[in-house]
Amino acid sequence: MDRGYNNSYEYYMSIALGLAKKGEGAVNPNPLVGAVVVKNGEIVGKGYHKFYGGPHAEVYALGEAAEKASGADIYVSLEPCSHYGKTPPCVEAIIKAGIKRVIISMEDPNPLVAGRGINFLREKGVEVITGVLENEAKKLNEIFIKYITKKIPFVILKTAMTIDGKISTYTGESKWISGEESREYVHKIRNKVMGIMVGIGTVIADDPLLTTRLKEGSGKSPKAIIVDSKLRIPMESKILETLNEREVIIACTEGSDNEKKDILEEKGVKVIITPKDKNNKVDLSHLINELGKLGIDSILLEGGAELNFAAVSCGIVDKIMCFIAPKIVGGKSSKTPIEGQGIEKMNEAIKVKDITYRVFGSDLLLQGYLYS
Amino acid sequence: MDRGYNNSYEYYMSIALGLAKKGEGAVNPNPLVGAVVVKNGEIVGKGYHKFYGGPHAEVYALGEAAEKASGADIYVSLEPCSHYGKTPPCVEAIIKAGIKRVIISMEDPNPLVAGRGINFLREKGVEVITGVLENEAKKLNEIFIKYITKKIPFVILKTAMTIDGKISTYTGESKWISGEESREYVHKIRNKVMGIMVGIGTVIADDPLLTTRLKEGSGKSPKAIIVDSKLRIPMESKILETLNEREVIIACTEGSDNEKKDILEEKGVKVIITPKDKNNKVDLSHLINELGKLGIDSILLEGGAELNFAAVSCGIVDKIMCFIAPKIVGGKSSKTPIEGQGIEKMNEAIKVKDITYRVFGSDLLLQGYLYS
Repeated sequence: MDRGYNNSYEYYMSIALGLAKKGEGAVNPNPLVGAVVVKNGEIVGKGYHKFYGGPHAEVYALGEAAEKASGADIYVSLEPCSHYGKTPPCVEAIIKAGIKRVIISMEDPNPLVAGRGINFLREKGVEVITGVLENEAKKLNEIFIKYITKKIPFVILKTAMTIDGKISTYTGESKWISGEESREYVHKIRNKVMGIMVGIGTVIADDPLLTTRLKEGSGKSPKAIIVDSKLRIPMESKILETLNEREVIIACTEGSDNEKKDILEEKGVKVIITPKDKNNKVDLSHLINELGKLGIDSILLEGGAELNFAAVSCGIVDKIMCFIAPKIVGGKSSKTPIEGQGIEKMNEAIKVKDITYRVFGSDLLLQGYLYS
Repeated sequence: MDRGYNNSYEYYMSIALGLAKKGEGAVNPNPLVGAVVVKNGEIVGKGYHKFYGGPHAEVYALGEAAEKASGADIYVSLEPCSHYGKTPPCVEAIIKAGIKRVIISMEDPNPLVAGRGINFLREKGVEVITGVLENEAKKLNEIFIKYITKKIPFVILKTAMTIDGKISTYTGESKWISGEESREYVHKIRNKVMGIMVGIGTVIADDPLLTTRLKEGSGKSPKAIIVDSKLRIPMESKILETLNEREVIIACTEGSDNEKKDILEEKGVKVIITPKDKNNKVDLSHLINELGKLGIDSILLEGGAELNFAAVSCGIVDKIMCFIAPKIVGGKSSKTPIEGQGIEKMNEAIKVKDITYRVFGSDLLLQGYLYS
């Protein structure tokens, strides 16, 4: 048994969680799941959920274990399913294989099915242990948990600022605040989420591609979501040239230019029309619901400052990722990560909880959650 | 020997450095020094430089060791002095005590005396080892090193911002950005430095005391230095009521109200008149030289945003301490830590190096150095 774990349950579960992580970016909006079959202290089968709609982790692990599964333990990072979905239920496969004991990290967060798999196994005389490395499993599947319970995407606000709180110089120059390692990590995140969201201001100012560019070459670009209340998007924007490799969604308000909408839709853009919020802009709460209906379970929100403030104030942001670069640019008029009207009183500030820190090159990444 | 040290030299030197640290805030502008006498692996004497002008660390350590010093090793965090200053030279005391070997962390940074103590000891047949935990010793004495070599104070810019880069809400409310643990630590820093500097904007807006308020009660307030180009300070400012417990220095430009200057001086304020810089404000480079001449070896610069930018751009800031609180306030017009005109190009940003991180309650402290 390796050091750093309290017992062998945690040790084997950590292996299952490590396997689960391999499915990142490929299983959405399904959960990340890993499974390990252990017999007499030896791992005899491993598996993970590899792609959306594909076989479950247990299927791979039991298949690899074959006849050794009989009388063995199986560690699964998520409660095994008990319903016929895209694949037959895993609990039946577990019983058929002769598994003696099932160790589970977390229950299925779907309130409609939670506990059913566990009950089924127990009824069939299989010993079930739950809650092993549960917090780790919940963090790993934070996107899935949000989406399956709320039917709206998990939103990650990502920003990068100098140590004096600026996202650009006073002339608007923003390349580059953060270092290469940080920017590379952002592309890894882009590869994991289903959507990337920016405001029209960013499209006009920076004309970004919003694609995933991984060092190792592969990677899929998330659907681009542009919040463009008045449908101002320039038709020559680079983002519209990426339509052949991924979906582009533009959100505008009722009463926007209908002709332009038609042209965009002809090009293949999906246009979502929302009511106006109190500032006559796209109602983000409405939009996020629509995006959820489209099956989008996760969104990386990459600014700018106005959209970021609208998003945090209306409560759609779940997580913040803030890169801090060790440089100073100053400037009373230099942009900061979150602007808008702002919050009046310090004691009404939006709290960020469960902060963690991580170093990327010479930058620091602060991550935390905005749940209340 | 404890774990975490590469050898016994480092182990005993770490004890000497720990002792040295006890003198913080009491020895300025002298260095922090600790000494340990070790005989047959046993510590037989300890000492540190306790107060400005007081006996050196070696004197205490040798005194405690008494006759056991004969044939022993002495660990000193700074090269022992070889000149008659406020006390007789330590190298003579070391030889007289019969010390066999001297282990030194760093040379005396004073270019006029560096190496003399070491040479003297070696000439007298004492074995000398240098450079043990040298980086740690240099960090501990960063104030002393700057002051003894440049004759100007070591300046620490301290700020506290939200995770979205704000030092106040859009209404100007700034109490409190950072948590109790962070603010307590700032008072510990105030207790260690000789001066605390703010701009007149901060005095008018917040009417601060700028005193040291330690939880444990004791503590000395640093000299208050107010940068007040046009001598606008309100005569009822609280800071002027602290004149009985510490010095208050106001820096203004040539041509400021002479009558007000006289009144302030009558009250006991020291007024420093400087030439105007290119923005018609106090020339900070000139001021810092004048403060050095007054024997001030260290300054905690606590903003505001305009003064901070002026200070970093003219190159007088050595170190930055940036507290980041896990909250969001947003606001296009909310203040940020460093403003002013700002730097035009991102690749001309002022670099912050040797970044370290430290957690205070739910805040994070980022510290780094601005040397080029």
